[in-house]
Amino acid sequence: MTVAFAGERGAFGELATIEYFGEKVKSAALPEFGDVFRGVARGRYGFGVIPIENSLAGSIHENYDLLLESNLHIVGEVLLRIRHFLIANKGVSRRQIRRVFSHPAAFAQCKKFLKRFPNLTVVPVSNTAWAVKKIRNESFGDAAAIASQQAAADFDMRVLARNIEDTKWNTTRFLVVSKTSRFPSPAEKRIKSSIVFSTKDIPGALFKCMSVFALRDINLYKIESRPVHGRGFQYLFYLDFAGDARSEAQRNAINHLQEITTFYRFLGSYQVDKPRDPVYHRR
Amino acid sequence: MTVAFAGERGAFGELATIEYFGEKVKSAALPEFGDVFRGVARGRYGFGVIPIENSLAGSIHENYDLLLESNLHIVGEVLLRIRHFLIANKGVSRRQIRRVFSHPAAFAQCKKFLKRFPNLTVVPVSNTAWAVKKIRNESFGDAAAIASQQAAADFDMRVLARNIEDTKWNTTRFLVVSKTSRFPSPAEKRIKSSIVFSTKDIPGALFKCMSVFALRDINLYKIESRPVHGRGFQYLFYLDFAGDARSEAQRNAINHLQEITTFYRFLGSYQVDKPRDPVYHRR
Repeated sequence: MTVAFAGERGAFGELATIEYFGEKVKSAALPEFGDVFRGVARGRYGFGVIPIENSLAGSIHENYDLLLESNLHIVGEVLLRIRHFLIANKGVSRRQIRRVFSHPAAFAQCKKFLKRFPNLTVVPVSNTAWAVKKIRNESFGDAAAIASQQAAADFDMRVLARNIEDTKWNTTRFLVVSKTSRFPSPAEKRIKSSIVFSTKDIPGALFKCMSVFALRDINLYKIESRPVHGRGFQYLFYLDFAGDARSEAQRNAINHLQEITTFYRFLGSYQVDKPRDPVYHRR
Repeated sequence: MTVAFAGERGAFGELATIEYFGEKVKSAALPEFGDVFRGVARGRYGFGVIPIENSLAGSIHENYDLLLESNLHIVGEVLLRIRHFLIANKGVSRRQIRRVFSHPAAFAQCKKFLKRFPNLTVVPVSNTAWAVKKIRNESFGDAAAIASQQAAADFDMRVLARNIEDTKWNTTRFLVVSKTSRFPSPAEKRIKSSIVFSTKDIPGALFKCMSVFALRDINLYKIESRPVHGRGFQYLFYLDFAGDARSEAQRNAINHLQEITTFYRFLGSYQVDKPRDPVYHRR
């Protein structure tokens, strides 16, 4: 059984994969999110791990779209704190650095650190782990990369600075997706369920939808509306609520909800994760 | 009166600025979103124009944070469709192109187009307009840039392909922010209001908050919950509702809401925009 993620080895997608499936997981690094969804939908991979929201950048609607299109199920989540390291070739010191390679999102997340070195040129690349590979392969003596600790270790590089991100609370939420649905076992505690729906565009429509949960004392983890242009309905709602969708109150709430929605899709029930720090793994 | 936006001339931030303030606007291109908020808060610029959400990439929480920190008011919105052009130096034909320069988000938005040319190397840079500047300044005969039509015109370049984005519905919503609040005039139709609040983490808390609008038949445009780690509360809610906050029903709803929230901030009332296509402007 192979697990697919998007990005290079050592990127945060792989770290989330290891956090969920353990160090011995057999994983495949694919170029794009769409490749992960398609590969899992076609049965080439048992599971996929994809980012769905970040505490600074927001929900990744594109991956919600791919989730709906591919008909996959959510079977788990991983909340990973984003920690960035300043990485250089061995023998290179911080004073020698003139250029920094990384993904633009990583630069945005390390602004305060970068401001302390106004003479540095930032060089955007498409992937943080690839930035490390690049400065190693070209033996740059004047360049550093911003990437994960894992990427530094994988390429056997020198770490010049640790945890250089602006905020310690920056967390990315990854979903574990599968072709076959899976429900939590009785041993699993703190379950949440994810659904997507749309309503008629009339005042109070969403309020009615939320009443089906409030009337049954079911807590909500997430609600988000998204305008959908060029389709048959105007808004799509993402909702995460507490509990297993097979439990009685949740089952009743879902039946009730389907009476008042114009579109409804159940995405999955799975264990709630708490934000965790990425752990470095020896290969 | 100068209007600040983040990015290079010809980037989508400038196009949104021109859409809202007209062609004769005096504008300042600043490096980062934080510079725009700080410049407006300090009175250096009369207004700022910043992206707040994209139909594929989602809400930009970072800019909601900057909006709260800077204490600025929303006085308007611009919904701009994102149209990408393939741009090269004059005399360069499509067959000669081996490399394409652009921002990673633009590559992600033009995947289908790029797949038709599997031998192209994509070169990520930090800004779409800067990509055009780069291939012009270096007189590249084997490279193209993906950017706006405005950037092509500004640098007097050749357009090799138009509207190469995957989806015609990809829209970015920009907010116009100001240090002083401004309410819509009676002549302005279709008004919306934006607020941010948080509630106690108890079942039904959000439901109660939404009831203050439903009970008064006030329609909602947007609702989004956002987990906030490392602060005194667990969730922050963004809500956009129909109407001017000074109208009677809206005023009552807001007073009612403040009875049940633990944090509340009014962001502004302003005219609702419809998605519009960027227009090319002669300089």
